[in-house]
Amino acid sequence: MRKIALLTSGGDAPGMNACIRAIVLTSLRYGLEVYGYRHGFNGLLEQEYLNLRAKNVANIIQRGGTILNSARCLTFKSDDAAKVAAKNLDILGIEALLVIGGDGSFRGAKHLANHWSGQVIGLPGTIDNDVDGTDATIGYYTAIETALDSIDKVRDTADAFERIFLIEVMGRHAGFIGLNAAIASAADHIMLPEISRSCDDELENILAHIEAVKKRRGNTSYIVVVTENLWPDGVTSLAQILTEKTQIECRPVILGYVQRGGSPVSQDRVLATKLGAFAVEAALEGKTGVMVGEINQEIVCTELENSWLQKKPLDPYLVKIQQDLFDILKRP
Amino acid sequence: MRKIALLTSGGDAPGMNACIRAIVLTSLRYGLEVYGYRHGFNGLLEQEYLNLRAKNVANIIQRGGTILNSARCLTFKSDDAAKVAAKNLDILGIEALLVIGGDGSFRGAKHLANHWSGQVIGLPGTIDNDVDGTDATIGYYTAIETALDSIDKVRDTADAFERIFLIEVMGRHAGFIGLNAAIASAADHIMLPEISRSCDDELENILAHIEAVKKRRGNTSYIVVVTENLWPDGVTSLAQILTEKTQIECRPVILGYVQRGGSPVSQDRVLATKLGAFAVEAALEGKTGVMVGEINQEIVCTELENSWLQKKPLDPYLVKIQQDLFDILKRP
Amino acid sequence: MRKIALLTSGGDAPGMNACIRAIVLTSLRYGLEVYGYRHGFNGLLEQEYLNLRAKNVANIIQRGGTILNSARCLTFKSDDAAKVAAKNLDILGIEALLVIGGDGSFRGAKHLANHWSGQVIGLPGTIDNDVDGTDATIGYYTAIETALDSIDKVRDTADAFERIFLIEVMGRHAGFIGLNAAIASAADHIMLPEISRSCDDELENILAHIEAVKKRRGNTSYIVVVTENLWPDGVTSLAQILTEKTQIECRPVILGYVQRGGSPVSQDRVLATKLGAFAVEAALEGKTGVMVGEINQEIVCTELENSWLQKKPLDPYLVKIQQDLFDILKRP
Amino acid sequence: MRKIALLTSGGDAPGMNACIRAIVLTSLRYGLEVYGYRHGFNGLLEQEYLNLRAKNVANIIQRGGTILNSARCLTFKSDDAAKVAAKNLDILGIEALLVIGGDGSFRGAKHLANHWSGQVIGLPGTIDNDVDGTDATIGYYTAIETALDSIDKVRDTADAFERIFLIEVMGRHAGFIGLNAAIASAADHIMLPEISRSCDDELENILAHIEAVKKRRGNTSYIVVVTENLWPDGVTSLAQILTEKTQIECRPVILGYVQRGGSPVSQDRVLATKLGAFAVEAALEGKTGVMVGEINQEIVCTELENSWLQKKPLDPYLVKIQQDLFDILKRP
Repeated sequence: MRKIALLTSGGDAPGMNACIRAIVLTSLRYGLEVYGYRHGFNGLLEQEYLNLRAKNVANIIQRGGTILNSARCLTFKSDDAAKVAAKNLDILGIEALLVIGGDGSFRGAKHLANHWSGQVIGLPGTIDNDVDGTDATIGYYTAIETALDSIDKVRDTADAFERIFLIEVMGRHAGFIGLNAAIASAADHIMLPEISRSCDDELENILAHIEAVKKRRGNTSYIVVVTENLWPDGVTSLAQILTEKTQIECRPVILGYVQRGGSPVSQDRVLATKLGAFAVEAALEGKTGVMVGEINQEIVCTELENSWLQKKPLDPYLVKIQQDLFDILKRP
Repeated sequence: MRKIALLTSGGDAPGMNACIRAIVLTSLRYGLEVYGYRHGFNGLLEQEYLNLRAKNVANIIQRGGTILNSARCLTFKSDDAAKVAAKNLDILGIEALLVIGGDGSFRGAKHLANHWSGQVIGLPGTIDNDVDGTDATIGYYTAIETALDSIDKVRDTADAFERIFLIEVMGRHAGFIGLNAAIASAADHIMLPEISRSCDDELENILAHIEAVKKRRGNTSYIVVVTENLWPDGVTSLAQILTEKTQIECRPVILGYVQRGGSPVSQDRVLATKLGAFAVEAALEGKTGVMVGEINQEIVCTELENSWLQKKPLDPYLVKIQQDLFDILKRP
Repeated sequence: MRKIALLTSGGDAPGMNACIRAIVLTSLRYGLEVYGYRHGFNGLLEQEYLNLRAKNVANIIQRGGTILNSARCLTFKSDDAAKVAAKNLDILGIEALLVIGGDGSFRGAKHLANHWSGQVIGLPGTIDNDVDGTDATIGYYTAIETALDSIDKVRDTADAFERIFLIEVMGRHAGFIGLNAAIASAADHIMLPEISRSCDDELENILAHIEAVKKRRGNTSYIVVVTENLWPDGVTSLAQILTEKTQIECRPVILGYVQRGGSPVSQDRVLATKLGAFAVEAALEGKTGVMVGEINQEIVCTELENSWLQKKPLDPYLVKIQQDLFDILKRP
Repeated sequence: MRKIALLTSGGDAPGMNACIRAIVLTSLRYGLEVYGYRHGFNGLLEQEYLNLRAKNVANIIQRGGTILNSARCLTFKSDDAAKVAAKNLDILGIEALLVIGGDGSFRGAKHLANHWSGQVIGLPGTIDNDVDGTDATIGYYTAIETALDSIDKVRDTADAFERIFLIEVMGRHAGFIGLNAAIASAADHIMLPEISRSCDDELENILAHIEAVKKRRGNTSYIVVVTENLWPDGVTSLAQILTEKTQIECRPVILGYVQRGGSPVSQDRVLATKLGAFAVEAALEGKTGVMVGEINQEIVCTELENSWLQKKPLDPYLVKIQQDLFDILKRP
């Protein structure tokens, strides 16, 4: 093998740069030329790339975002688009393409593989951690830390007067960030996609919790962590409903895209580095149509389709702790 | 003088604990007994206090919030309330009361002073910095830092596809946090209370800016810092309007009460310490009906009424920089 | 079972408070009374404890240090000491003692178990991560983050003029913190206890690296991560030697005990919470003489002796990456 | 005026990039071409520069270090060097040179001005804050924050067993960082250059303090903040001496160059922005041989020589607070 290419696709995730660096340095170590396509799959269509050398990846390991930019590429779904991409890759002489992104990006990678003879390997880069085949995705731990930092600050403002704080965190349709941030911040309640109830039941549940907290702790703040996309019209709407029903001020905190940025924490950098190095070695071994991931401290390859066909479950012990042991309704 | 008391009132502000510590240690140094009332003015009404010793203030300087809790006390406005408070203070033998809070708390302090013979001194503790008589209020710098940290993270996610980010910051009706956070984060646009326009004009202004950025920089993120209470129905509503009008995804970030918490930055701790020490010395000198503040590096006393009668202006050079030099519409 | 006790022993580790909280809330959930001994094993000897209730553990999850204080207890090694402790535990009616600490503390726990009929369970709390039976110890991830934050800052100061920075990190005699911090910070070189050379060889190795960096990158900073206790007389001495031999300014950074403090990162809080809850359940199941840990995402019990008899190896893939793929001497 | 140039010189200071950005955007706003020389004055000698446009300064405001690199230039002291620099500036058609650095860099600027007909303006960029003509230098507040963060972490590890922690902070020969970090962290003792004693007296002083703390607080940690360059052979040596004399473990923490890096805090970015904009305007007004600074919230120009001839005093009230009110020896 002589030439390898990579791209970052989908939502930004802290650690993507560390991953790019690992891919580049490992490739150079094995004597490969390495090219980075810009703006995700759009770069493949536009043949917009740069030849990456050691100097391109100096001092990027601590930076959020991605030096290759990321993007969604809605037009990539067509066969024509895949063919254009395949052609561009061949023109450049690329033999393997590494795609850092979430399951949406892997669908794109799989689609490309159906039209291209080169190797395609995925690396899980998304803050939502909703990709099976790896215990954690690149960017996940940083996103938890960002959410946690905000909840810690809200906790400081424990006025005598009760307030209910609804902190909306990301996760798309998975509760990983939410559950971990809730446990780590000692939040009073959590709304997770995996444990869904009807809106009415959910509302009833929260109101019961607020009552129980009031009885036990008197007038203090009450913190609820809510995963995005769960409540119709978002937490601003839920905050209004709760304010009406409880007669307690309910304030929303919407972190939004704040959770996609920031300097990656150590684990995201280390994971990104391991997966980046391993992906290049997997390419040299001829692997294709797989995603590299770390499961139980071992780096493994799983079929790309697995990333969107298999749903990764939450840590059952964590769920039990949150619901059973720390649930104030269950306390004696 | 033998006995002095203090309380923290109104919204939480990082640095309140550092202030409490300085008041306590300075009082002890001068041989005074010092009492802390809990939950703001409510403590005065309930005679809920504790005798503060050095051990009570050990290890609190870096903590957000306030060990005496803070609260609003809506019932304090009546003459009866003031009389109850005065009586409770006399029962305890308090000769001077130090009130850490914003102008709302100072109105309460002034009201108390009309019914009590003891000395009343205010210390400016609020993140909004909208108190005249001091260049900065305790908590202000930490709030800017918190807003800045979030905007920095949003900036990392500079996708190829344009997005407009509206970051709502606190400030009540003042633009200090907003202006400083906008300058420090290189935000593209800012909405300040001091430079108000009609909603229609403001909308037109933003739309013109977005057009200009698009022309100059192509498809990148566009960041707007918006002070709270400025747009009817908040930034979630403004985000929807902008998404419709520009056909670009517009995302709100609502930091809310996150800005009131967190470990205070060095300046808030240093300012809190200086003002706390000085307030005790002012009390020993017989001062009353004043607020201590730092103006041009000098600690001074100003009439309590000043805090709500005088409106503190924004730094005119900063406003000029934001509007004149960095405004993309004005660039050649 | 009706009464359970706990203590924190050895060096401080961020997350100990989160662990205490989980133990207390889980114990209360199961109807147990829970007592916390102060200052490690010294509390057992002095019968210095407090009855822990939910309010004692409110708002401690984000705080570094431990509310029960920690300490070494050198006198605990004697049989007499163990008997006194056993007697005190019996007087209080304690049926199980949970010990949060490192392997030194577990030796103490084992020693106590030889003289006491109650159950003894260990929880791994130390920043060094040199305890077998768990992938990570409570406090480990925060320590890496602290070291990383400092190295990131040093990296910013990349003057034109070369400087060599020696960053000394903790780890006692294990290279976990060092290896992870080095990988995550893109350090140029690392000195680990597990890959020891004679001082002469180590020196020769570093000098060769510095030469190679100079050739490739010209005049830039060169960062070496050094685990404590490795170089005779520490990094200050090594810095002087390198300055002489290379004629390049070599500056030491000694983080020292900074690495033992700070608000724990999310993983330390989550791990601490899981282990704390599980340890109580293990006690209720009659377990004794074991340490709870998390291995490959499963919480398990291993014999206490394992913590000091078995040496936990570094992640071999990480070592390979640092030495083989990123070593500048090996680059083409 | 048509062409302006700038350079960053001396030790790195967080905020230098924000300053560069302000200079560039302001220059462009006024229709000037702006050039950045690299590696401090070395760039002038090597004619190594780049034409700075808006895109060069996008996304740099939050980054530590300087995109133009900084350096000391020992050879600049000669007349020949100044003449070479003057010639290079003329070749490029530069009419004004902005120098961001400390007083050492201003000596260089003054020296250049003696041999060049163009305008020379200085901007105070150094973490030490030892430059008169401005209340704060760019980088100062971030350095305090970095030191403070470390001391806060050390404070967490308050073991039952006493330890003495000596935290060495930067400042060259000024105690600004030390004094502010000590006040903000509630350190027990501080060693400042401005309040110097003989080594014997200093030692006696510390030993008396340690005794007093021991009497009052029993066995807890004792934190001393020491400015660099004060104790012969540094804090490692002082730590050894104290360990011997007190029989208490004394641990040094050497932050070193960590204090020169990191993302600048809001005030450094705002100050850097104001001074950068103002310096360009001062150049347009024909000013030369001056340094811009902010004094009492007003931006002013002072003679360049002032920066090294005048010694800026510490805040006397802060010194009094540390020594008089919080000194444990003075407490009743």
